[in-house]
Amino acid sequence: MTASHTPAPAAKGRGRPGIYLMSPSGRVTAPERIEQAQAHLKELGFRTALDRTALAEYQRFAGTDTQRIAAFRRALRHKGEIVMATRGGYGMTRLLPHLDWRALADSGKRFVGHSDFTAFQLALLAQTGAVSWAGPMASFDFGGKRLNQLTVDLFMDAMRDELELLSFETDDADPVDARGVLWGGNLALVCALVGTPWLPRVRGILFLEDVNESAYRVERMLIHLLHSGILATQKAIVLGRFTEMPKSSLDAGYDMHSVIAWLRHQVRTPIITGLPFGHVSLKATLPVGARVGIATEPGMAHLVFHEH
Amino acid sequence: MTASHTPAPAAKGRGRPGIYLMSPSGRVTAPERIEQAQAHLKELGFRTALDRTALAEYQRFAGTDTQRIAAFRRALRHKGEIVMATRGGYGMTRLLPHLDWRALADSGKRFVGHSDFTAFQLALLAQTGAVSWAGPMASFDFGGKRLNQLTVDLFMDAMRDELELLSFETDDADPVDARGVLWGGNLALVCALVGTPWLPRVRGILFLEDVNESAYRVERMLIHLLHSGILATQKAIVLGRFTEMPKSSLDAGYDMHSVIAWLRHQVRTPIITGLPFGHVSLKATLPVGARVGIATEPGMAHLVFHEH
Repeated sequence: MTASHTPAPAAKGRGRPGIYLMSPSGRVTAPERIEQAQAHLKELGFRTALDRTALAEYQRFAGTDTQRIAAFRRALRHKGEIVMATRGGYGMTRLLPHLDWRALADSGKRFVGHSDFTAFQLALLAQTGAVSWAGPMASFDFGGKRLNQLTVDLFMDAMRDELELLSFETDDADPVDARGVLWGGNLALVCALVGTPWLPRVRGILFLEDVNESAYRVERMLIHLLHSGILATQKAIVLGRFTEMPKSSLDAGYDMHSVIAWLRHQVRTPIITGLPFGHVSLKATLPVGARVGIATEPGMAHLVFHEH
Repeated sequence: MTASHTPAPAAKGRGRPGIYLMSPSGRVTAPERIEQAQAHLKELGFRTALDRTALAEYQRFAGTDTQRIAAFRRALRHKGEIVMATRGGYGMTRLLPHLDWRALADSGKRFVGHSDFTAFQLALLAQTGAVSWAGPMASFDFGGKRLNQLTVDLFMDAMRDELELLSFETDDADPVDARGVLWGGNLALVCALVGTPWLPRVRGILFLEDVNESAYRVERMLIHLLHSGILATQKAIVLGRFTEMPKSSLDAGYDMHSVIAWLRHQVRTPIITGLPFGHVSLKATLPVGARVGIATEPGMAHLVFHEH
C-alpha cells in the first residue's frame, strides 16, 4: 500500500501552530509516550501544551467524567489551534450529552484523533456541521522513538490545508466517481451512535475501520448500518484497515473477504478497500464532515479534497 | 440464586407436543449434542423433528442464507407446535429482511431460543406483536448428559402456559412494582437492531444478558440504548447474567458494578439484577412480547406472568 499527497502550490504564512493535548477517553498508561510525542511535535514545529488532567486516572478513564468534560472547556480557552487526543480506548460516549457543541464548533479549533474519538467527531458533525480531523493521536502515532514519516507528512499537510489528493493502492474496489461529505471512523463507534442524536444524517462517503473485532462482529455491525438504511444512501463505502481480527475455529474460512463479498450482494453502493486509515502506523488525516471526491481506476483509488 | 415457579392449579389436557429443531444461525459443531437433545426431549414427553438442513454447514453458518430462510418455511409447515433453535452463534440478522413475519406470527408456533435468536424474537415482535420465548436451545441446554432440572421445569411450565411467577434472589435491585411488555434478550443483538425496522418500540420491562463482552463494551452498549431514548422510557431494566467478561489490566477495578453504579446516575428507571437468564445453565423461559409484572422486596424480585 502506498499513499501519496500533492501539496498545494504555496503554503500560507503562519506562526508556529499550537497543539493542545487532552485525554477524552481511556487513561494514559504510558506517560513517557506523551513526553516523547511532545518532543517529536516540537521538532515538527509545533508548540504543545498538555491538559492538566491528561494523565489523570479514574477507573479505566483519564479522569472522572467531570474532569474530562472540563478538559474540553480548557482546550477551547487555550490558544493552540489544534486539539489532539492523547489516545482512544473507551469513555467518549459517556460525555456526549454534556459537551457544549456550539462552543466547540465556533472555536474553529482543529480536533484530531481516531478510534473512540470517532464519537466526538460524529457528534460534532451531527450537532453543528463542523469539520474535525480523523487522524493521529499523541501516544500511538507520535509517542514512539521513530515516527511513520508518511503519517507525519499527511498530518502536516492536512493541518496546513495543503492536502489536495490522497491516492492509495486497492486490490478490491468497485468503479466509482462521486462527490459527497466524508464521514465515519471507527465502525463500532459509528454503530453505537445509530438511533441517537449523535449520528450525522449524511448521504456521502462513509469510511470505516476497526480493531480487535472478529469478522462476524464486523459483519454484524455492517448489517446494522445496512438495516438502518445508512449504507444504501451513501455514494461510496471506503474501508480502512481492520486489524487484529480474532479468528475462531468456528469461522471455517469465513473472513473479511467473505463479509465484503456478501455485503456486495446486499447493497449497490460502491465499496472501496485499502484506505490507509485505522489502528495502523500509516494513517491519513481525513476531514470528517468536509466535501470530498472519490474516484477509482484499476488498482488505485483517489480521495480528492477541497471539493466545493 | 434460586428461581421458583408456581404451576397453575390444573394443566390443560393435550397430546404429546412436538418440537421442530432448526438452525437459524451458526453451524452445529457437535451433532452428537443434537442427538442427545432429541433423546432428552423425548424423555420429557416431546416428539422432535430435526430440520433437514439443521446440520448443514456453510462458512460459519448452518447453511447458506437461502437454506436457513427455507428452514423457517419448513418449520411452519411441520405440525410441531414448538420451534426451537439448535444453537445461536451468528447469522440471524442476515435473514431478517427475508422472512415472512406475518406467516410466522399467524402460525401460532412457539419459537424458543436465545443469544443470536434475540434478533428473530425482537423482529417478530416489532413486525407483528407476536409473542415468542426467550429460553433454552437444543445444543447448549438439552445436549449434555445431564440437564439442569430447574431450566427444564421452567421450560415445561412455560410451554404449558403454567408459569405464573418467577421469583429470584437479587443482591442489587431498585424498588419497583410495575407492569409492562417484557422484551429484550442479548444486549449486543438489541443494540444491533437500534434504528432498524426490527426493533420493537416497547415501553415496558427490558431484560438483558450477554456473554464474552468486557465491562466497557457492555457499558458502551447500555449507553447506546440510553442515548437512543430506550432506557428512560422503560418501566424496569432487568439484568440477567453477564458471563465470561474478558478483563484487562486497563480496567483498574472498573467492572460490571461500576457500570451499573454509573448507569443509575444517568437514568431513573429501576434496575434489577439477578435474573436467571443468559449464557448459563440455569435459565428461565420468558415470554418476549407478553405483558408481565415485576416487583421487588429486599433480596428478592418477582416476575409475574399472565398479566392482562
